[in-house]
Amino acid sequence: MPGITRIQLSHGSGSGQQRLLREILAPVLLPDRQGVYEDAAVFASPGKRLAFTTDSFVVQPLEFPGGDIGKLAACGTINDLAMMGAMPLHLSVALILEEGLETGLLVRVLGSLARVCRETGVVIRCGDTKVVERGKADGLFVTTAGIGAVLPRVRLSAAYARPGDAVLVSGPIGLHGITVLAARKNLSFASRAVSDCAPLAEIVRGLLDAVPETRVLRDATRGGVAAVLNEIAESSEVTIRLIQERIPVPESVEGACSLLGLDPLQVANEGRFVAVLPAGRAEAALAVLREHELGQGAARIGAVEEQGRFPVIMETLIGGTRSVETPPGELLPRIC
Amino acid sequence: MPGITRIQLSHGSGSGQQRLLREILAPVLLPDRQGVYEDAAVFASPGKRLAFTTDSFVVQPLEFPGGDIGKLAACGTINDLAMMGAMPLHLSVALILEEGLETGLLVRVLGSLARVCRETGVVIRCGDTKVVERGKADGLFVTTAGIGAVLPRVRLSAAYARPGDAVLVSGPIGLHGITVLAARKNLSFASRAVSDCAPLAEIVRGLLDAVPETRVLRDATRGGVAAVLNEIAESSEVTIRLIQERIPVPESVEGACSLLGLDPLQVANEGRFVAVLPAGRAEAALAVLREHELGQGAARIGAVEEQGRFPVIMETLIGGTRSVETPPGELLPRIC
Repeated sequence: MPGITRIQLSHGSGSGQQRLLREILAPVLLPDRQGVYEDAAVFASPGKRLAFTTDSFVVQPLEFPGGDIGKLAACGTINDLAMMGAMPLHLSVALILEEGLETGLLVRVLGSLARVCRETGVVIRCGDTKVVERGKADGLFVTTAGIGAVLPRVRLSAAYARPGDAVLVSGPIGLHGITVLAARKNLSFASRAVSDCAPLAEIVRGLLDAVPETRVLRDATRGGVAAVLNEIAESSEVTIRLIQERIPVPESVEGACSLLGLDPLQVANEGRFVAVLPAGRAEAALAVLREHELGQGAARIGAVEEQGRFPVIMETLIGGTRSVETPPGELLPRIC
Repeated sequence: MPGITRIQLSHGSGSGQQRLLREILAPVLLPDRQGVYEDAAVFASPGKRLAFTTDSFVVQPLEFPGGDIGKLAACGTINDLAMMGAMPLHLSVALILEEGLETGLLVRVLGSLARVCRETGVVIRCGDTKVVERGKADGLFVTTAGIGAVLPRVRLSAAYARPGDAVLVSGPIGLHGITVLAARKNLSFASRAVSDCAPLAEIVRGLLDAVPETRVLRDATRGGVAAVLNEIAESSEVTIRLIQERIPVPESVEGACSLLGLDPLQVANEGRFVAVLPAGRAEAALAVLREHELGQGAARIGAVEEQGRFPVIMETLIGGTRSVETPPGELLPRIC
């Protein structure tokens, strides 16, 4: 019997699905193959307080410099758990496959997903596969859900920022969005950009161990740092003031944004987060972040103030002040 | 500002996404709107042993007699948890929306999803929304993941069937598959069929309270009763013998299957399950199932034997014996 090279509709149920599971999916996602035939995974509860989150991934192209849809699907859910102070432990993986998809590609991206899980101690517990007819999906959509155990002592919420707090970012911004855009549109001027896509659980754990007083963590995905800061400002009923010269923007992002008329603050990241914490702990937090590979470019980019006219404002390089807005939404579709 | 009547690409991120969430999704899915801006839900662990499962739903058409993609997405995950003896408690909902989708339809199907959750005590904890361009998805795909607390004393697995056990089915089979097929193809001869789509947590709890010795529970979704029994037989290394005259097949299913050349055993259900339990407890189990609205047609359809030549065999109405096979897979694509 020849191997499966392309997804067929018959892989959507019955023995075709079993064959896909046995030959392609289980070896890469579930190397020990336990419980492949059960309806749900059963395990001991990992803690007193749990965090639970989900994300669908529809990124185009499916592979890009620095990552692919599989790495993104693992990191996205791991990071959402980490942002609530939870150590990610259990992951579900649901696939929607378009008829005709090359299984070589599928194995590559699921291999990336599995690698991130192995490296972060996350166990893939359950999954599902659906196949739709050619033209009814775009290659591959991945939906992950994750369960994590919330660290003791930690209380994080977008609503906890207070006037006087410091606002930090964990590294240079905008790389994921510009990388995906460049890969999609063949933009040579941004071809050196590499996605920041990375799992943030370890660096967050380091930060929370050192600075458990941290009040807000948010990874700056769709809508970028601008969207996240606006959400924090609204939830906490405060104004956030940024200092433009302190915001770490890589040259490739800067260049692409000027050419395309984009604001780096509005471009998506997949391995950067914003932290709001008491100003007195800002230097300690920066030191801890910079010790980690993923926090090399960490910076203190602003402060929280009493609620003013705008949720987020920025002191610009040319000495003015402008409002920083959540992007309207259509800038970069299907970035994750 | 006029209401949102159709999904646009701009609803995929930034302020467009926030508006979609605020105006359409949160009112129907999260009426108390708590934590809409957090990256993950945080809650106390619901028990010592957890069950975790996920399913994507790509059914066509999105609405059909007896249900819709939303009801299916809630029931599918609730039922997978119930089959492991877990009471479903927490649900995630991830949506992939095609540009141009009518929000009226979206609100209807998410209303169904929310209704099933309310009726079964399941809390929608977290969600995600992605929008893809027209022609890159088929209206709406829904992925749910669920967390449940496993009942004490219960130990269920597809691998626990033993020779001598009784095999039960909770009601008439094949209705979901035939209903969806009839709705899709406008088959007038099957137009009276109504999907069996229903949440099974309550009837399962009743069964497990009365017969905690139950060894296997499986809802007979894709591939029908035939696929599920084959999986149980393989996992448990036994043969399952069915008695055809005891299998409850509704007239509408029987008729449609003869005309279409389908085997009712291979047709999908979304509210029926198979139970394997000690023969001495079969009558007690049937009595409990039949007390419940969803178990009116429960029947003892066969028995477990030592492993023979075929995983599943059936004594037919005409006095012969035939092997019952897992369907090859392409019979009824996109049934759930």
